[in-house]
Amino acid sequence: MAPPFPLPAPMRRALDLARLAEAAGEVPIGAVVTRDGTIIGEGENRNRRDRDPTAHAEIVAMRAAAAHLSDFRLTGCDLWVTLEPCPMCAGAISHARIARLYYAVGDPKGGAIEQGPRLFAQPQCLHRPDVYGGLAEAEASALLRDFFAARR
Amino acid sequence: MAPPFPLPAPMRRALDLARLAEAAGEVPIGAVVTRDGTIIGEGENRNRRDRDPTAHAEIVAMRAAAAHLSDFRLTGCDLWVTLEPCPMCAGAISHARIARLYYAVGDPKGGAIEQGPRLFAQPQCLHRPDVYGGLAEAEASALLRDFFAARR
Repeated sequence: MAPPFPLPAPMRRALDLARLAEAAGEVPIGAVVTRDGTIIGEGENRNRRDRDPTAHAEIVAMRAAAAHLSDFRLTGCDLWVTLEPCPMCAGAISHARIARLYYAVGDPKGGAIEQGPRLFAQPQCLHRPDVYGGLAEAEASALLRDFFAARR
Repeated sequence: MAPPFPLPAPMRRALDLARLAEAAGEVPIGAVVTRDGTIIGEGENRNRRDRDPTAHAEIVAMRAAAAHLSDFRLTGCDLWVTLEPCPMCAGAISHARIARLYYAVGDPKGGAIEQGPRLFAQPQCLHRPDVYGGLAEAEASALLRDFFAARR
């Protein structure tokens, strides 16, 4: 069920980025990093185009934001992403010291926040962002469903 | 205890890369990707120099190897690293389809293979490499111990 408030602008931008990924033949996932409400890094899935196994939307957006700030940490910044992060991206979120994580829809197959390894709940985890999931479930899951349906 | 065979050349190179990281003021961790025994990508921790929260040795080495092969997967390739990978790097190893993972010493604080989330043992995990740990425990742990002792 959609939350009872208009979708915040950074998540709308992340969904637009997911559509750009889809148009380029990539899995449709987009992500945005904000600081004090302003976008300072963004990206979409680029695995195939960049020939890079690490080029998930979150990694691309966080690397861009870190370059923008000229800092290897994104302390106080927020990450907005259209799908629940995988273990690789959740680990990077923790390393980057992201303050708040917002995602559009959970991922029962590959998510690492609410399911599977639940990385932020591991006693080893050095930094846990505040987490807000399910912000745009219908829109984000339709994007992914249509993409994979078209490829079957 | 050291294994009963000479340290393979890729792990010796990874230890040299860790020393390069140390000389540059970075946490001393090095990594190498091989294919059929030949090094096709290497790297050391570059978080501070590159201002990149994702620039762990493993990520740097796998991105270099993927660029070398012009492929977003490293199917059939091996990864050699001086420390047990964290959740971010373990996730990337799985995405990259690394065939065999060799590491010098376990990491009780941040490792994600033998401890903590044990990512490759999670039912969600789509690709698990064969894992060989503890190849150079004394040497790799001394490097890290000396680095952190000098900073206290």
